Amino acid sequence: MSNLKEIKSITIIGNGNVAWHYYNIMHQQKLDVKCVSAREDIKEEDLSKDLIIIAVKDKVIEQVARKIANRTSILVHTSGSTNIETLKDKSINYGVFYPLQTLTKGLELDFSQVPLCIEANNEYTLLHLKSLAEKLSSKVYEISSNQRFYLHLAAVFACNFPNHLFGISKEILAKEDIPFDIIFPLIDQTIEKIKHNNPFDIQTGPAIRQENSIMANHKSKLDKDQREIYEVLSNKIINKQR
Amino acid sequence: MSNLKEIKSITIIGNGNVAWHYYNIMHQQKLDVKCVSAREDIKEEDLSKDLIIIAVKDKVIEQVARKIANRTSILVHTSGSTNIETLKDKSINYGVFYPLQTLTKGLELDFSQVPLCIEANNEYTLLHLKSLAEKLSSKVYEISSNQRFYLHLAAVFACNFPNHLFGISKEILAKEDIPFDIIFPLIDQTIEKIKHNNPFDIQTGPAIRQENSIMANHKSKLDKDQREIYEVLSNKIINKQR
Repeated sequence: MSNLKEIKSITIIGNGNVAWHYYNIMHQQKLDVKCVSAREDIKEEDLSKDLIIIAVKDKVIEQVARKIANRTSILVHTSGSTNIETLKDKSINYGVFYPLQTLTKGLELDFSQVPLCIEANNEYTLLHLKSLAEKLSSKVYEISSNQRFYLHLAAVFACNFPNHLFGISKEILAKEDIPFDIIFPLIDQTIEKIKHNNPFDIQTGPAIRQENSIMANHKSKLDKDQREIYEVLSNKIINKQR
Repeated sequence: MSNLKEIKSITIIGNGNVAWHYYNIMHQQKLDVKCVSAREDIKEEDLSKDLIIIAVKDKVIEQVARKIANRTSILVHTSGSTNIETLKDKSINYGVFYPLQTLTKGLELDFSQVPLCIEANNEYTLLHLKSLAEKLSSKVYEISSNQRFYLHLAAVFACNFPNHLFGISKEILAKEDIPFDIIFPLIDQTIEKIKHNNPFDIQTGPAIRQENSIMANHKSKLDKDQREIYEVLSNKIINKQR
């Protein structure tokens, strides 16, 4: 293994969003990359690569890693919420190769802007992962397992949850035959503002102004699920101010 | 009034975010504009303008309009949630001049991109408001009171609520000494995706994947308010999928 100069051959195990995007960008970078499903019979030749990327659901990472019982390759997972030590004893060189981005199979994006968060169990592995990551993206960060956990948690609040709220917003407008894009400048400006201010300092809307009759009117037009979200978030906005 | 060619003199009543921005852009456009606080003694000369803009909290709009008891000027309010008929009988020409944007006093922005939603009680008023609006912005929409209500409600879900979630996200990262900007590409991509897809179709994160142990770990690290938001939104994401 000490002969390895840089990572050139890669097996990706998984068939989800991350596997799709890693395969896509590595293939574009002319790397020798192959993608195999975790449920397939993984062949010995797939395991004799410089790097094996386990890109499966968190709860089966350890199970897949055990199946591989790899001896020589660098072994990484791609999870935001799984500790690096989950791969301990599955290889002497292991780490994490986590893309801090919302990835959807088939939807290409500028991968050079995807923050890649890497972690490794030793210097040898770290250098190799870093070198590979820098080929794929201009945003490479060394992030510990503990930091990565909080990053992932912060991403749930900054992306997964807002995405659902955007869905509700679109649904509300569609009912009144109003195109969703009328609201895009407002969304863009909201994003621009949070990049330069503490969001709590620039909160707007009926909750922060405690306009109770507007909030009551709003709630009267929402379905049960929408109303529950409206109530919780409005209350939290009001509480935060106190 | 039938002699009025275009709106040239304006009084803005209010001292909030909308009043500040309208004053700012109208002043830049060399209009004869003056801003007075609703609590001040509004002088007769302030009321003899082509247009009077009531930019105060929703619940005091009618009260301020009654105080004005205006006879000739076009009278508008700027509220997302207040029906145009609130101004009925306060002037023969009345309407709405609603900026669909999150505006913060002192934070300038490209006003030409602010959607202005106008409504009027007659054709005369509509034409004059439209002409003024088009001087200020390239995005002018005729929107009924009913549509405006839903626009405002949709904006709460698309902007006010996500803003609070961004605040929590920043708070979580700050605790671990992780700069908030590491997550900006993820936020940008989330926004880019919702502009071209139905958000519900591209939902990502632990809730949609029903990764219960990750969600339990996340919740264990949140404070009470954060956890409550996490639970409600995760449940709604799971429900929406069914």
